[in-house]
Amino acid sequence: MPESIPKNSVGIVTPQTMKFDTPLPLDSGQTLNSYEIVYETYGKLNVDKTNAILICHALSGTHHAAGYHSMEDKRPGWWDTCIGPGKAIDTEKFYVVCPNNIGGCHGSTGPNHINPETGKYWGPDFPPLRVRDWVRSQACLADKLGIDQWAAVVGGSLGGMQVMRWSLEYPERLKHALVIASAMKLTAQNIAFNEVARTAIRSDDDYNDGYFLEKETIPKKGLALARMVGHLTYLTDGLMGEKFGRELRSGDFERGAYNEVQFQVESYLQYQGEKFSTTFDANTYIMLTRVLDYFDLAREYNNDPVEAFRNALCKFMVISFTTDWRFSPERSQEIKNALITAGKDVSYAEIDTAQGHDAFLLPIAPYIRVFASYMQRVAQEIT
Amino acid sequence: MPESIPKNSVGIVTPQTMKFDTPLPLDSGQTLNSYEIVYETYGKLNVDKTNAILICHALSGTHHAAGYHSMEDKRPGWWDTCIGPGKAIDTEKFYVVCPNNIGGCHGSTGPNHINPETGKYWGPDFPPLRVRDWVRSQACLADKLGIDQWAAVVGGSLGGMQVMRWSLEYPERLKHALVIASAMKLTAQNIAFNEVARTAIRSDDDYNDGYFLEKETIPKKGLALARMVGHLTYLTDGLMGEKFGRELRSGDFERGAYNEVQFQVESYLQYQGEKFSTTFDANTYIMLTRVLDYFDLAREYNNDPVEAFRNALCKFMVISFTTDWRFSPERSQEIKNALITAGKDVSYAEIDTAQGHDAFLLPIAPYIRVFASYMQRVAQEIT
Repeated sequence: MPESIPKNSVGIVTPQTMKFDTPLPLDSGQTLNSYEIVYETYGKLNVDKTNAILICHALSGTHHAAGYHSMEDKRPGWWDTCIGPGKAIDTEKFYVVCPNNIGGCHGSTGPNHINPETGKYWGPDFPPLRVRDWVRSQACLADKLGIDQWAAVVGGSLGGMQVMRWSLEYPERLKHALVIASAMKLTAQNIAFNEVARTAIRSDDDYNDGYFLEKETIPKKGLALARMVGHLTYLTDGLMGEKFGRELRSGDFERGAYNEVQFQVESYLQYQGEKFSTTFDANTYIMLTRVLDYFDLAREYNNDPVEAFRNALCKFMVISFTTDWRFSPERSQEIKNALITAGKDVSYAEIDTAQGHDAFLLPIAPYIRVFASYMQRVAQEIT
Repeated sequence: MPESIPKNSVGIVTPQTMKFDTPLPLDSGQTLNSYEIVYETYGKLNVDKTNAILICHALSGTHHAAGYHSMEDKRPGWWDTCIGPGKAIDTEKFYVVCPNNIGGCHGSTGPNHINPETGKYWGPDFPPLRVRDWVRSQACLADKLGIDQWAAVVGGSLGGMQVMRWSLEYPERLKHALVIASAMKLTAQNIAFNEVARTAIRSDDDYNDGYFLEKETIPKKGLALARMVGHLTYLTDGLMGEKFGRELRSGDFERGAYNEVQFQVESYLQYQGEKFSTTFDANTYIMLTRVLDYFDLAREYNNDPVEAFRNALCKFMVISFTTDWRFSPERSQEIKNALITAGKDVSYAEIDTAQGHDAFLLPIAPYIRVFASYMQRVAQEIT
């Protein structure tokens, strides 16, 4: 809990809900007849509605990107380091919109909501989504907010995939795309980690084939495990060594203490897993990892990213982190190279850091510097 | 099943059992009052008993390192590529002994055996072990076999840890130590992967806190998951890409097929997990990963590997594989450098291969070449 709200915070914020009664066609061929999107906004929309920034969240993100919901909050929103007065995404210049994606579990229509057509929880029967479906629903939100064109669409990791898709699906509707720690498609290893996480959830008897809400069970163990598997990839070997080394949480190796000793890294993972297991929906987790697996930016463009990006009209900023082994700099370089070959305006920064994939969420000075500088350029182009 | 036994195979082999009634003191302070070791031998012990090779197995290895148990066997022993007539460990020259480690689950005394003092399965109450305990029990086996000194002790991964420990605990009892794809201690990331695997097993309701044999349940799901987590580290990103790419097992991405499609890499992991879950004991798996976590070659030597290796009298061969990210070449270089600094005779080979950690089990030509050459040197020194 903040004793007082920091000066460079957006302060106390309240989520809003937008209801949609126009059916949303989905890539799967199914249709979502009605849905809700929960979102937060920071800063003020200018009269011409030209200063709006869309934030696309990643796997475990939500609409709560910055500020506090109350003075009792222990932590601010997930990207508070980058969003606020004077920060990289400066809320004194921009009107920032961050929606919870549909299919999520933090307020927008998803598996933990009631399907109005059956009166039961959607659960595992929630329609499978793709990144393109999110982008389509975000465009509907923009329509309702009266935003014809985003000054920028910004996202890291799975969020970066949404940013790239925006640039292809609605090329006229964004001036800048910021793609951070992302990739045009997952590698087989990425998919393998996701599959282990999904298997962990499905293996939990409390998952009940996805109908756990109806049966009033929660697959906490499976979710915790899935999150632990994820965390293995968010940190690096070096960083784990630096943070935890081979230090024991308590006790020592002396005789008799064998079964009790636990390394600090184990304790950290257990904590991360348990925390997540009480706040996240298992069906959402399975669905989101599937969205990641299926994402393949150039598949419908003859598997040629250059052909894909030729459709884009915006300018690009691509950022990667040297020790990110989930979406390595090579993946970002592929994006950057395809953009250059397609004749696009692209800035690329590879940030030297030990922080791995999580770096995109952290206040790493050289990262914040290039991010803020690029956003100043975005601000200068606002008419 | 082999239609006929290949010429360079040790052929049909039969495991033997050695019973020990002299109590084995364990590092934990506990004692194993009596125990059995199941082992296989290949080749003939010479009259002077100077041509014996000890094979130390890794996490999922057994005493069955080479040959076939019957003509119905689908596959030969786990290191058949390296053990046999004319192979790297040439059974025309050497007498090869491969025991199943105590605490294992393939015949030697372990958690899936009855504790004679209680009349119940040992289960989770089997005494916690360390690498040193295995080495001590292997020395007792050598005594019974009349082998005063091994021509060489050889092992990969966790097996390599036993080899190094042998060189410090019984320096007079081996002439050569071959340490392959191993490390002097695990990194925090290694420990993290092991902890996720253990959590997977413990999370399975059928694990029953380890008393699953008594309760006649088998934590198959947990074991399968643990194995999947392990496999993530045995293969590399590049190798998974090469083997599986983003290929679908069946079906395609077309509309409506969403929930059915599965990538080949998922299918591979599921298969590996399920296969393992029916053949391995969950308590053994937890214990073996704990042995790995605790192993720290130099801890009792002021954390100085040079001081540790000063006690060794044998010659060393250290082999690593470029793409092994479980026990990377850096870990092997640490071993090699400490040995050089301690004034020891050490050969080091870093094999360029895409095969990752699994490489030590595979017929990779440059690996087999250096391995066989070094073993020829071992053979030449036999008196």
